[in-house]
Amino acid sequence: MRLSRYFLPVLKETPAEAQIASHRLMLRAGMIKQASAGIYSWLPLGYRVLRNIERIVHEEQQRAGHIPVLMPTLQSADLWRESGRYDAYGPEMLRIRDRHDRDMLYGPTNEEMITDIFRSHVSSYKDLPMTLYHIQWKFRDEVRPRFGVMRGREFLMKDGYNFDLTKEDALHAYNRHLVSYLRTYERMGLQAIPMRADSGPIGGDDTHEFLVLAETGESEVFYDSEITDLKFGDREIDYDSVQQCQSVLEEFTSRYARTDETHDPAIFDQIPEDRRRVARGIEVGQIFYFGTKYSEAMGATVQGPDGKATPVHMGSHGIGVSRLVGALIEANHDDKGIVWPWEVAPFQVGIVNVKQGDATADAACDALYKELTAAGLEVLYDDREERAGAKFATMDLIGLPKRITVGPRGLEKGVVELTDRRTGESEEIKPELVAAALT
Amino acid sequence: MRLSRYFLPVLKETPAEAQIASHRLMLRAGMIKQASAGIYSWLPLGYRVLRNIERIVHEEQQRAGHIPVLMPTLQSADLWRESGRYDAYGPEMLRIRDRHDRDMLYGPTNEEMITDIFRSHVSSYKDLPMTLYHIQWKFRDEVRPRFGVMRGREFLMKDGYNFDLTKEDALHAYNRHLVSYLRTYERMGLQAIPMRADSGPIGGDDTHEFLVLAETGESEVFYDSEITDLKFGDREIDYDSVQQCQSVLEEFTSRYARTDETHDPAIFDQIPEDRRRVARGIEVGQIFYFGTKYSEAMGATVQGPDGKATPVHMGSHGIGVSRLVGALIEANHDDKGIVWPWEVAPFQVGIVNVKQGDATADAACDALYKELTAAGLEVLYDDREERAGAKFATMDLIGLPKRITVGPRGLEKGVVELTDRRTGESEEIKPELVAAALT
Repeated sequence: MRLSRYFLPVLKETPAEAQIASHRLMLRAGMIKQASAGIYSWLPLGYRVLRNIERIVHEEQQRAGHIPVLMPTLQSADLWRESGRYDAYGPEMLRIRDRHDRDMLYGPTNEEMITDIFRSHVSSYKDLPMTLYHIQWKFRDEVRPRFGVMRGREFLMKDGYNFDLTKEDALHAYNRHLVSYLRTYERMGLQAIPMRADSGPIGGDDTHEFLVLAETGESEVFYDSEITDLKFGDREIDYDSVQQCQSVLEEFTSRYARTDETHDPAIFDQIPEDRRRVARGIEVGQIFYFGTKYSEAMGATVQGPDGKATPVHMGSHGIGVSRLVGALIEANHDDKGIVWPWEVAPFQVGIVNVKQGDATADAACDALYKELTAAGLEVLYDDREERAGAKFATMDLIGLPKRITVGPRGLEKGVVELTDRRTGESEEIKPELVAAALT
Repeated sequence: MRLSRYFLPVLKETPAEAQIASHRLMLRAGMIKQASAGIYSWLPLGYRVLRNIERIVHEEQQRAGHIPVLMPTLQSADLWRESGRYDAYGPEMLRIRDRHDRDMLYGPTNEEMITDIFRSHVSSYKDLPMTLYHIQWKFRDEVRPRFGVMRGREFLMKDGYNFDLTKEDALHAYNRHLVSYLRTYERMGLQAIPMRADSGPIGGDDTHEFLVLAETGESEVFYDSEITDLKFGDREIDYDSVQQCQSVLEEFTSRYARTDETHDPAIFDQIPEDRRRVARGIEVGQIFYFGTKYSEAMGATVQGPDGKATPVHMGSHGIGVSRLVGALIEANHDDKGIVWPWEVAPFQVGIVNVKQGDATADAACDALYKELTAAGLEVLYDDREERAGAKFATMDLIGLPKRITVGPRGLEKGVVELTDRRTGESEEIKPELVAAALT
């Protein structure tokens, strides 16, 4: 993308309303614009990051054998009356009345709707196990939306639902989600720690939240420092293997790690003192097993091997897609701006032409831009008539992992400069070697 | 995808509520499920088609130089009060009140919001031309939603907005959209004819609707039969070239083609009688030039080359993404089911194992499935324990372009059968030649 033809409205001043780094940086980098309280438009740069996260979530969900669907944003109140949650859900549910005076709502989650789909179409245990998921906009009418996309009202979430014949099968689905989430977050360059949590309005006994450690996190967390040494890495996993998924779960949840809701000082104090950590965390996902809560209330049964109708065992599993954009920035920024991990960066490479209009510099930039794009890289070429300092500041602010600086002086020596955003290290390199260095 | 692990709830009976072929077939093929009146869940097969259409629209928009953003579904009423449309829009606007009693609405379109983004961030003519677009769910509270996704209430739409300094520039943007839309629809295997239309609540003088001819179309259309011979084809186009875009527009709009809203019998009757056509059409897109209607009302000005503040010239341009799924089926089906064009098919190839459990047949299917998937094809392998007739009926119903039939008898001769869904023609082919035949 040539910046002269792009829409990247960076702000020079720090917006007064932003209290945390990610919110501030998303506004300054022209990633979002508030539309109304807790509701944002995603400007071009922000939209690219959102799509990258969405893509990774889709790929990892499908790798685990989960099937994508897409449910609507608006739901009928009747479904929620069946489960009893229409009255139980508080003022965070946005209630709507249509032109025929029917009660509707903007879905904050989809347990009822997916259970309705299931009961309408599935009647035999032979069709199980089944996990359906979607990535869709949701709404929670927060009383005080804040922190930008971290605690917005309209937000993008992946929510998935497993349907199984037995509790054992459903717990495998739970474990499979845990494994898949570990992979998902790591691919984004993020360490998210599964912590024992509270189930809230979803219900159920087994639940883990995934938390990213960050000073600005909304939850206080307590953990054994050994847990931060664990890496999922590039291990191969067979998601059908009960044993493999179970053993990953044990590895990642056997050490103490809890949010303040489930924290137990008596247990915590048994950890050697030098390993006890109290910190803050941002919740970026949660998995639940809640058994037959919805299937019984809504009559979602299958015929078991014994011929009898059995309510299915279910769980639900969420990843906060739009919130992750904020969490990623909280975990990846410095004084100059955002420092994107490669996999989610809006562009991986920025080209700065320090002397736009100079025929040699322009030609070298054009050639690099074409070559890198052809090599499959996403490149933002700053071809504006701007002084070099302003171009560098913009590149630092928007945080592309690699910057290539092209100017007449370097070109005379036959080199350009390749700079790593995270380390700040630069090297001179021949233009014809750049593509190989980056791929 | 192995069908035994997929969720494809095909229906044997024709649903009573469905009046037109696309609605009937989408329900029967397990593509959608109604959630409430005019609101649908997209089941796995339907979701794949929707994503394919979305992908083509994104690619063609970006090829034309348009920049993707993503605006929220809910909007503040205040913005619509600025343009005067909050009161002017009828009961099709879904009005919502949040917990703080603020007036909101579920966006039926985004002229106000995009104009607000523009005026907040752009102040110089040097940043023009600019076209921003998004693909987002919208809501129109139709009094009688019907025909499935063709006239739903919650629907997915691509809407784009151009901002230009002068009327001439904005008309080039209009033409560019027309060209880009012709390409977009043709890529989906659809002929959509641009017809002079009425601007309705968007406003403006220049507008064309794109209509797909179909007996079940909601609009009566009148056209010169010569127009259906026009093809955009694979011609190269420079979207920056005013002349090139203008000449495509002239080619595709110089013959008579109008909806009933703008039909003029006096002009129509001048066409030679054997070329006069009266038919029905489905609207799948519309482009508008409306000048400074919104920019003046909302103060969206740029500083022109003369230093004076000038309201920008705008247009808006929509493609009905979810509606296209229905339109595609209306234009592509037969007695047995859907006949998907290759580019939008949920899977391009289906493998039918006529004797599941037979070691030779299973091995041959597995090998084909792996090979075709590795070749980049999307393959649905019917590996269920079902009789062959039922498998064929399902494949015909869901309309994958190519079917490979694998059975012990053929394998003994060293062949499988390759069938084209559209023509019904079959040929025997060696399994090792299938991939080459399909790619």
